[in-house]
Amino acid sequence: MIYEEPTVLNLAVPVKKALSIPASITPLADHTARELAKVNDLILSRTGSEVALIPEVANHLISSGGKRLRPMLTLAMAMLNGYRGDAHVKLAASVEFMHTATLLHDDVVDESDLRRGRKTARIVWGNQASVLVGDFLLGQAFRMMVEAGFMDALDILSSAATVIAEGEVMQLATAKNLATDEKAYLTVTAAKTAELFAAACEVGPAIAGRGAAERRACRVFGMALGQAFQLIDDALDYGGRSEEIGKNVGDDFREGKITLPVVIAFERGDKEEREFWRRAMESGDLREGDLERAIAILRRHGAIDATTARAARFAQDAHEALSIYPDGEMRRALAQAVDFAVERNR
Amino acid sequence: MIYEEPTVLNLAVPVKKALSIPASITPLADHTARELAKVNDLILSRTGSEVALIPEVANHLISSGGKRLRPMLTLAMAMLNGYRGDAHVKLAASVEFMHTATLLHDDVVDESDLRRGRKTARIVWGNQASVLVGDFLLGQAFRMMVEAGFMDALDILSSAATVIAEGEVMQLATAKNLATDEKAYLTVTAAKTAELFAAACEVGPAIAGRGAAERRACRVFGMALGQAFQLIDDALDYGGRSEEIGKNVGDDFREGKITLPVVIAFERGDKEEREFWRRAMESGDLREGDLERAIAILRRHGAIDATTARAARFAQDAHEALSIYPDGEMRRALAQAVDFAVERNR
Repeated sequence: MIYEEPTVLNLAVPVKKALSIPASITPLADHTARELAKVNDLILSRTGSEVALIPEVANHLISSGGKRLRPMLTLAMAMLNGYRGDAHVKLAASVEFMHTATLLHDDVVDESDLRRGRKTARIVWGNQASVLVGDFLLGQAFRMMVEAGFMDALDILSSAATVIAEGEVMQLATAKNLATDEKAYLTVTAAKTAELFAAACEVGPAIAGRGAAERRACRVFGMALGQAFQLIDDALDYGGRSEEIGKNVGDDFREGKITLPVVIAFERGDKEEREFWRRAMESGDLREGDLERAIAILRRHGAIDATTARAARFAQDAHEALSIYPDGEMRRALAQAVDFAVERNR
Repeated sequence: MIYEEPTVLNLAVPVKKALSIPASITPLADHTARELAKVNDLILSRTGSEVALIPEVANHLISSGGKRLRPMLTLAMAMLNGYRGDAHVKLAASVEFMHTATLLHDDVVDESDLRRGRKTARIVWGNQASVLVGDFLLGQAFRMMVEAGFMDALDILSSAATVIAEGEVMQLATAKNLATDEKAYLTVTAAKTAELFAAACEVGPAIAGRGAAERRACRVFGMALGQAFQLIDDALDYGGRSEEIGKNVGDDFREGKITLPVVIAFERGDKEEREFWRRAMESGDLREGDLERAIAILRRHGAIDATTARAARFAQDAHEALSIYPDGEMRRALAQAVDFAVERNR
């Protein structure tokens, strides 16, 4: 499962008034608000097609929520690196389209019924439309990149497209396989989730004409932030560090997705616990009370805390990557977004 | 259904020795043989991935046949327009990857079990792998386009990617809908099939630095050739003009795909025949002997001949488009490929 932001930002609501954005991501949203409004306009116009089903399916997902974190990162990184043109708007919209295309295909691959609390496009319009509208959005993403006119950005984002697909295929192999260790798991998340964050960030210095050091710093920042997000998402899927078991918990467990909390608990578990994980996740033989038992085992072994600690180390890497830039509002906004990524796990 | 060439060219067999290539496409294959060998090497190397499933799925389809007609067109058009560099090889491989990605997704969308006489990837490895490996190949296609370094070619091919997806979505709407008329049908085939032929041809003059007249001529040639191919394919699916009903006939009929022969026969049919088409194709209530009855009705109304005649008009358009080029071996080879497109319907 690709990381999905839990809060909702309606397309029609100006970013500044969207009070549902958590506090620490607000500075980033504020500093990119004007450009993000242009990105949203572009997204709406580029889902247009004479084929009515295309905007219908695309907008079902695009306007259903999501904080536009990835395009915000493209805008912020371009600005942090002193970019003065308009191309970052098209590239940010491209990044969001790549993300949306991945989600449409992901829901088909995972046979998911719900996303962001709504029926998935494949449930409403079928797998066929989800696959094909995903392809359309991917095509539109590349068209906008071409219009932006930077060969470096095209290079970064087309490479990301292949890496993301590789990560998704890798995930097919690790799913329902408890032999997955932490290293193998983080290799999958780096490709399927964090790569798009990394690419979204790297295009900023690339179009600003900055050198290898800045491109590397922004890429490392995005990669680390993406990994932190994914790990916290994995922890939240088992209720995070909260004592209560909330709603929307247990999706990964029910789908047999081996995530870091389970990898850790399986490694630390005794014979009986390992039998439990194998039955529930590898064989998919789920019984009443299994989720509660899984969460109890995860807590007993400190697997949620260990996952959160791993995310915090990635967050630290992200902070360090920013250190080549002088202190300023945009750098601070990016740093606060990193803290938000980890601290929502409360 | 996307047009699929019926003959087989094994990747390991040098093009000149592949005697199964029909006579009239041989000149085109001969004149592009050296470059096509490079395209095949590139294709093999770019399906490579550390994720073992990716080359496995990709090569199942890529090395299973197909005459590489689309990449051959890119090579031929670049050479016809006096291009002297290496970029046409990468662009030709990109075109073949776009085509392969479309086929992988198409088989998922159509729930097809067989292609080129072999089990489809989705039957062997599942829909998940087919969707994701298609995405991977699309990403690799764009990476090769970026490496080729021509913004014009990127523009042409990324636009084609969106048009193809639009065509596939349009087809979802026309499938099982007997209200489809000839114009609506040809709009779908122009997008889903002929657009890639048109784009494959247009990149030739674009990278050779030729002007709008040449780009337009090559694009019109590809579009007309693609339409002719698709219509003949539609006719062959009902046995073409042969008196006998061969093997591999009736796929479109069984899948409820309304193609031009059926559009024509439905328009020319009486009340009883229209009821038959509605029952068999819209309701999918297929009975013993229905295919034979369908073919008999198509022949009674001359629907196969009318479809072939429409294809011949497209072929004429393709020939005329070539007329801006002076007579020469490559122009003649391209003209012979057009004749092959129509004449295989015997």
